[in-house]
Amino acid sequence: MRIDLKQPILDKNDKLAAELRQRFAENHVYVVDLLASPGSGKTSTILATIEALRDEFNIAVIEGDIASSVDAEKIKSQGIAAVQINTGGACHLESAMLKRAIDVLDLERLDLIIIENVGNLVCPTDFDLGENIKVMILSVPEGHDKPLKYPGVFQIAEAVILNKVDTMPVFDFDEEAFNDSVHQLNPQAPIFRLAATKDQGVAEWADWLAERIRQA
Amino acid sequence: MRIDLKQPILDKNDKLAAELRQRFAENHVYVVDLLASPGSGKTSTILATIEALRDEFNIAVIEGDIASSVDAEKIKSQGIAAVQINTGGACHLESAMLKRAIDVLDLERLDLIIIENVGNLVCPTDFDLGENIKVMILSVPEGHDKPLKYPGVFQIAEAVILNKVDTMPVFDFDEEAFNDSVHQLNPQAPIFRLAATKDQGVAEWADWLAERIRQA
Repeated sequence: MRIDLKQPILDKNDKLAAELRQRFAENHVYVVDLLASPGSGKTSTILATIEALRDEFNIAVIEGDIASSVDAEKIKSQGIAAVQINTGGACHLESAMLKRAIDVLDLERLDLIIIENVGNLVCPTDFDLGENIKVMILSVPEGHDKPLKYPGVFQIAEAVILNKVDTMPVFDFDEEAFNDSVHQLNPQAPIFRLAATKDQGVAEWADWLAERIRQA
Repeated sequence: MRIDLKQPILDKNDKLAAELRQRFAENHVYVVDLLASPGSGKTSTILATIEALRDEFNIAVIEGDIASSVDAEKIKSQGIAAVQINTGGACHLESAMLKRAIDVLDLERLDLIIIENVGNLVCPTDFDLGENIKVMILSVPEGHDKPLKYPGVFQIAEAVILNKVDTMPVFDFDEEAFNDSVHQLNPQAPIFRLAATKDQGVAEWADWLAERIRQA
């Protein structure tokens, strides 16, 4: 029964996502959908990425949250366009929500849009938003066993960011086990080691992303 | 449209939850539904709670995960009955899943069942499982702003556990701001400060819980 109810929603979402994808391509905008648990450092990673790429690219951010606009305010305070979507309880962003946010942005002048999805390792994985890539963040305090428990998000990610690596001595994090299980689920995805708030490892991730933006 | 699709699922869930609640009451079993993000320390908190309460009470644990049985194995290794539910992609437990797990437990001899829900701050809040109380954990690395972003789970919790308090010096966690926003959303809920893996603060939480179990 769950499938019968879900499929029409996904079909409708995918149709609109395809339209958005075409608009992004026509305007040569590269779009990243960023997925992670609450508190894994999505906003800090976005802020660090902006710092690394803002000289070369025009960037906008779309913030998805159940409630509040604290993240959009943090982005705007850096002089970067940010649109807040409040899902009002929904556990993920859908294309229809994204379309309303995209409509207020000047796509022609943008090179990169980063979408910060709702903090959730499960629900956002099913929803195409017309993005070029989904990227996921796991933070060290969450533990190295998370690929075993939430395989879906690790499988669909084009890149995995391991954030807060500076706190590794504090937590019992087995990085080898983590890398092994990520590679089993997703042999292609690079794993970037970051401490976003300490500006550690940001350059390597930003270089990888910049190469893709230039080709959009 | 989302409401039209969701309401029949919730109604069906609530009806079965009421049946479960009656079975729990008839058998004098106290049931805790534990909600938190991935990696906030749900399993560690359960292990510490078991250690604190196992001399007085017969305990069983139900583990909800998208995939894997690593948590159930950790519980069983402590000589405690554990049933693993794999949701196969679903972002929360529902009563129908719980009923199948309950059916294999000997309710008559149990005093306490702890349900570890899927790591997710959003979806599990809507689903009554027939539990006596929902309790939520936030861990310090997730950040003090989470009540603003995920208000629902803080509102329905009968108690809030702030876990990994031993890592507070490592993170920029404003505990006063956190306490203020929790109390605004939920003036009644006590906040227990724990470092579950270090056995810090466990006694106070376990005493609070034990008092409730004795009355079941």
